[in-house]
Amino acid sequence: MLGIKYPIIQAGMAGKATSAEMVAAVSNAGGLGTLGAGYMTPETIREQIQKIKKLTSCPFAVNLFVFDSPSCTPEEIQKANERLKPIRDQLGLLTPNIDSYSIPFEEQIKVVIEERVPVFSFTFGMVDSFWMKKLKEVGTILIGTATTIREAVFLEQAGVDVVVGQGAEAGGHRGTFLQDSERSLVGTMALIPQMVDHVQIPVIAAGGIMDGRGILAALSLGAEGVQMGTAFLTSTESQAPVIHQELIMKGTEEDTVITRSFSGKHARGIQNTFITQLKRHEEDWPEYPIQNALTQDIRSASSQQGLSDYMSLWAGQGLRLSRKKSIHELMQLLISETEQALGRMIDPKNCATDD
Amino acid sequence: MLGIKYPIIQAGMAGKATSAEMVAAVSNAGGLGTLGAGYMTPETIREQIQKIKKLTSCPFAVNLFVFDSPSCTPEEIQKANERLKPIRDQLGLLTPNIDSYSIPFEEQIKVVIEERVPVFSFTFGMVDSFWMKKLKEVGTILIGTATTIREAVFLEQAGVDVVVGQGAEAGGHRGTFLQDSERSLVGTMALIPQMVDHVQIPVIAAGGIMDGRGILAALSLGAEGVQMGTAFLTSTESQAPVIHQELIMKGTEEDTVITRSFSGKHARGIQNTFITQLKRHEEDWPEYPIQNALTQDIRSASSQQGLSDYMSLWAGQGLRLSRKKSIHELMQLLISETEQALGRMIDPKNCATDD
Repeated sequence: MLGIKYPIIQAGMAGKATSAEMVAAVSNAGGLGTLGAGYMTPETIREQIQKIKKLTSCPFAVNLFVFDSPSCTPEEIQKANERLKPIRDQLGLLTPNIDSYSIPFEEQIKVVIEERVPVFSFTFGMVDSFWMKKLKEVGTILIGTATTIREAVFLEQAGVDVVVGQGAEAGGHRGTFLQDSERSLVGTMALIPQMVDHVQIPVIAAGGIMDGRGILAALSLGAEGVQMGTAFLTSTESQAPVIHQELIMKGTEEDTVITRSFSGKHARGIQNTFITQLKRHEEDWPEYPIQNALTQDIRSASSQQGLSDYMSLWAGQGLRLSRKKSIHELMQLLISETEQALGRMIDPKNCATDD
Repeated sequence: MLGIKYPIIQAGMAGKATSAEMVAAVSNAGGLGTLGAGYMTPETIREQIQKIKKLTSCPFAVNLFVFDSPSCTPEEIQKANERLKPIRDQLGLLTPNIDSYSIPFEEQIKVVIEERVPVFSFTFGMVDSFWMKKLKEVGTILIGTATTIREAVFLEQAGVDVVVGQGAEAGGHRGTFLQDSERSLVGTMALIPQMVDHVQIPVIAAGGIMDGRGILAALSLGAEGVQMGTAFLTSTESQAPVIHQELIMKGTEEDTVITRSFSGKHARGIQNTFITQLKRHEEDWPEYPIQNALTQDIRSASSQQGLSDYMSLWAGQGLRLSRKKSIHELMQLLISETEQALGRMIDPKNCATDD
């Protein structure tokens, strides 16, 4: 359906990580590269799409955030800024005067439609029927994100073509949109087979998948493919900050936690000073994208100062499996590892995990 | 190593669920049945082991809890009882006067050794070298439980023969013993391959595995076998309360949460009034097994009154996949489903990784 050779989707990580080079490299290697365009201006999105098209003739995807704009009183914003003040002081920042917290979704999606992007993936909700119709008219395939079976069924009924089942292991933002609580943190191993049983559309497994063993496991559970984020974050094409990549490379499965302090939405990342220091305010922040806008200057300054303490260090739970490879090498490794893992399943003599 | 035909271990669920009949039925069907003996008196353990031996000549396991006895002041116990009072009132119970909270571990393990049980599995820590030596002298194989790679390495170095990697999806008590926090809640998909890479002893996958798809996925990740609990809780041989079984049968992946209100140790179960009502005291309870002893009368009364509100309803996150079958039928299904799932992987027409 997606016209790709291998059922491997590189997750559309918003921020600087997913450059046009990364997207094209994944697609050229037979997977589906995804531009994480959630925070990009419409102009940048068009620029990046045109760059990708120059670098590859294979299908690729663009990922956006779909959500209802929340309301928030000036008092709530002031309160949040007060709680962030000690961190701003630490970084030498003044409290900024931000009056707009919105993301120009309509302008963003118009570019996706005008550029006839082969695949449009999204998270945090469901794109409305007006845009869905427009996207389908230009032949774009829609991939939604679900963290529970209810969400997957909702997306299927609304007309998406493919659903990503995002397990609790996954790094970055939770795609949860129907009931955001501990109860929508379902591990990939439990989530995928239950989702496969309850929708007709293809399910893509995401969360904790880092190598060929994970890919074969996901396919065994009934998924038609996998979506991997963290594994691509340390590729040589990644433009994630060096310090972020280093912490992933030396990280372990015990390093990440779920927090909503960075953006107002729950997301998994490596625990650092920012998360620890603000943990007690966890439930009090304004909603996404307001909190995200409020912490923007902090994250930027921390990154510019090469300081991991106040950056968002998104990562999944498979950190010990991360590798520093070019996309081309990584994709070839993933395919050969999957074949090897399958070989071990078929030949009982090789069933031991080490050869 | 375990002398079993299929790499399927029935988890040793403490409480009434794992009768001698269930254990023997699993072992007779080619898996490894486990008596959940954690809360049993030494006399009952001996009785049950002798019953199992009459019902099967195949290997089976006995599971115990291994932990350091915590200290607790009378004030802390009084405080806990005050917090439990509204629930006792609801059930018509008076606050009991419990003066002993210990579990007679030495007497329990002596029975395991005297009865030369083929496999001894344990959770919450590491059995000390004295008992390990005694167990090994009578030829007993040791299976420890780890929720992180550090714990798996610790168990291996201490001399266990096999380690169960317990993913965050798993129902019942977390086996965590080195660092009990959110950070030791690692999903099975991420946990198993990392664990396999860091220990030489066989790794058994647990957490969210309910059918043949899950078994094949676990083997794909490098596990040598699986341990399943919830899947056996609804078997016809299960002696878990009917209402508990019914809630599992009609449950979904969104129904469970982690709580320490029942026992003082984190455990996953179906959310009910008890958990919701006591959530704000979550971090204040005495440690295991003190809190467990304190809630004993509440859980019993709730169960006797057929009331699910105040019982511990342990369950993993794969509830939609639960089935009402005899152990014999369930084991046969699991084997044939695993073979079918492998068949789908091999058949080039359905094999997504092939070109």
